[in-house]
Amino acid sequence: MQKPSIVKGTRDFSPEEMAKRNYIFDTIRSVYKLFGYKQIETPSMENLSTLMGKYGEEGDKLLFKILNSGDCLAGFTDEELLQKNSVSFAAKACEKGLRYDLTVPFARYVVMHRNEISFPFKRYQIQPVWRADRPQKGRYREFFQCDADVVGSDSLLNEVELIQIIDEVFSRLNVRVCTKLNNRKILSGIAEIIGAPEKVVDITVAIDKLDKIGLEKVNEELLSKDLSQEAIDKLQPIILLEGSNSQKLQTLKTSLAASEIGLKGVEELEFILAKTELINLKSELELDLTLARGLNYYTGAIIEVKALDVQIGSITGGGRYDNLTGIFGLPGVSGVGISFGADRIFDVLNQLDLYPKDSVLGTRVLFVNFGEAESDYILPIISRFRQEGISSEIYPESTKMKKQMSYADSNNIPYVAIIGENEKNSHMIMLKNMQTGTQELLSADECINTLRY
Amino acid sequence: MQKPSIVKGTRDFSPEEMAKRNYIFDTIRSVYKLFGYKQIETPSMENLSTLMGKYGEEGDKLLFKILNSGDCLAGFTDEELLQKNSVSFAAKACEKGLRYDLTVPFARYVVMHRNEISFPFKRYQIQPVWRADRPQKGRYREFFQCDADVVGSDSLLNEVELIQIIDEVFSRLNVRVCTKLNNRKILSGIAEIIGAPEKVVDITVAIDKLDKIGLEKVNEELLSKDLSQEAIDKLQPIILLEGSNSQKLQTLKTSLAASEIGLKGVEELEFILAKTELINLKSELELDLTLARGLNYYTGAIIEVKALDVQIGSITGGGRYDNLTGIFGLPGVSGVGISFGADRIFDVLNQLDLYPKDSVLGTRVLFVNFGEAESDYILPIISRFRQEGISSEIYPESTKMKKQMSYADSNNIPYVAIIGENEKNSHMIMLKNMQTGTQELLSADECINTLRY
Repeated sequence: MQKPSIVKGTRDFSPEEMAKRNYIFDTIRSVYKLFGYKQIETPSMENLSTLMGKYGEEGDKLLFKILNSGDCLAGFTDEELLQKNSVSFAAKACEKGLRYDLTVPFARYVVMHRNEISFPFKRYQIQPVWRADRPQKGRYREFFQCDADVVGSDSLLNEVELIQIIDEVFSRLNVRVCTKLNNRKILSGIAEIIGAPEKVVDITVAIDKLDKIGLEKVNEELLSKDLSQEAIDKLQPIILLEGSNSQKLQTLKTSLAASEIGLKGVEELEFILAKTELINLKSELELDLTLARGLNYYTGAIIEVKALDVQIGSITGGGRYDNLTGIFGLPGVSGVGISFGADRIFDVLNQLDLYPKDSVLGTRVLFVNFGEAESDYILPIISRFRQEGISSEIYPESTKMKKQMSYADSNNIPYVAIIGENEKNSHMIMLKNMQTGTQELLSADECINTLRY
Repeated sequence: MQKPSIVKGTRDFSPEEMAKRNYIFDTIRSVYKLFGYKQIETPSMENLSTLMGKYGEEGDKLLFKILNSGDCLAGFTDEELLQKNSVSFAAKACEKGLRYDLTVPFARYVVMHRNEISFPFKRYQIQPVWRADRPQKGRYREFFQCDADVVGSDSLLNEVELIQIIDEVFSRLNVRVCTKLNNRKILSGIAEIIGAPEKVVDITVAIDKLDKIGLEKVNEELLSKDLSQEAIDKLQPIILLEGSNSQKLQTLKTSLAASEIGLKGVEELEFILAKTELINLKSELELDLTLARGLNYYTGAIIEVKALDVQIGSITGGGRYDNLTGIFGLPGVSGVGISFGADRIFDVLNQLDLYPKDSVLGTRVLFVNFGEAESDYILPIISRFRQEGISSEIYPESTKMKKQMSYADSNNIPYVAIIGENEKNSHMIMLKNMQTGTQELLSADECINTLRY
């Protein structure tokens, strides 16, 4: 006899949590489908050769590695083992690891299936990923990602479409959001203009902190990164960029006039903003230069979504990346994608209590069990109810009425059908509304009509 | 640059395969819900202490073990490592493993959440499991299980309900099946009657082969297992049991008259068969004594489903097990459950081509892209189409018409909307039916009406 426990950083999902999560996943899924994205799934395990080196040194450490089956120590010499070098040991004793994100497995999928795929390939994928992070509040070792990407198309209409998808999903979920937009090329342009192209990361990291630490500290940080005072002065109008999106674009055009790549970034942003004007987004789309998300990864648009009514990090993000599949031998395939953060969206909906009532509905009616004669009579009736699409249960034992009612109660079953001897003889059903406490004597047909949504 | 590969025994699922699998999962899920089962999910990883020793010695070997993160060799002495004992090494270097089935994690769930659960607890769970099997045709290292169980109720109405669920699922999937029913208590009774209660496994394994090897060989095998000729003679009427279910029950009642447990089994079967008569099953339910599934595990009813039109093993199975949670310190909780074999059902539906057309539908209409002016005009139109629930795409680049048409073709998009300069000026849409090749000039409203299912 052992006391059972759950792996730290992982979670069980109860029926209620599942209903809520399914509501979120179903919403995202149906919007993806509406925009023509097709679902794929990849295995939970990938060869470590596919995963290693794709997420930086820190990422390699966070991969869950699976010990080879069978005699996993057979191939080791005594010397190898006595070195006790866990990294080189794992490299030999483990061939497989758990998926760390959905992007690298997707890149592998595209390369391995390139002859079956008709490009541009619009795919979505909703699956768990695993990271050997130190467990902490709000950070899990197993969590779901909900990605959509288009690969094989350079068209900025894809960016426009993904922004539309974000808008539609959060509108359906009733979450007020602001979508922030930036472009990696503009960040490169800025660094170029101030004469420090190699400092693009330092500059962006510093600007990114504006909200938190204020302008003065940002400038201090820039100085500490060996940027000249002249360069920092040049940065000021860009850091303090204000006004409408088109005003910002005008300022940027002037500031970046001498940078080809910077102007290209402005042009891309202009295109995306102009096209979204044609389609009446329900939420705000804001040009935000402090957006630095995944800087070393993205090559064009950068997208991030903030919830307006809850203090929480970004709840969706994405962007354009060139050469997704180059590492697997298929160069020249550009991609752009987004990823909904299901766990944070779950938290937002919980905090704002935004789940529609019918998203958490379970059984509609419980038939009370008074004994074998009554339950024999009920079995064909409950079959008919189910045939009519009404989720129904009969309490399996003929225990005390009170226990059966309390089962209905704790399972949030809104109606209880009572068929005792009287009801049986008169072919009627006593239907009790558990919320109001009222009872009505109804025929089976009337009952079905009442119970239908 | 590396050539990517996939882990042996695992699979990618293409959009078409996903649509077909979702059709199966959605069918099972909606029937489970209709019968009042609630969904839960448990983590992919469990502590190995939860998993080890639950699936027999062979099962322990088939568990995928996850190497501890960080310095996994730090705790080992030189001596321990030099023993090169992979089993004891893994026991120390791995704390976690991948879920092997859904039953043990469910038992853990029930014990850990027993104070939140209102029993009887009817739960379903559709998740992947992993087994380090040698990969071979039709056997995968990652596959989905679709389980439903009721725990905390001894009532045989639960068995009746699960048989109804099986009937409903396969009726919805249009798969002709026969559900076979047996009872562990009858098998025990038989062994008792012939004076060899300890031989119940040998007897059942032998009888199980009747179909394949014939009566004579079965009797030879029984002899070889040290059963007396007298015992084997007594077995003959049971092995050769024929006729309707009620005839079989009559024979068994006579044969098992002296065995209390055997008669209890007959009584249980009688109850289940009588109740299913009240609800008009669409498929056959057959008492089959040769059914021996999971003998050491089940304690009452044993259920197995065979497809009638495809040669394949059992496509669904289940049964009653007492004391599911005893191993985790919560005794006295009886359970009964079934598990649909999604992969085999997938094969059956493929072989019989039973997927309804609308189960694999993707994008409904592709808008051809003739350039920026036309696509600007299309963007609000396509938004409206999507608002009307019509899954729509615009080809992201204004490439050759032929290429765009071939994209529609290979993605099975049934309609293409063509809006060139003429259509734009007259506010009309040329809608091409890709199957018939016919084109019609329609207003946006007419188009939407045509495209709606």
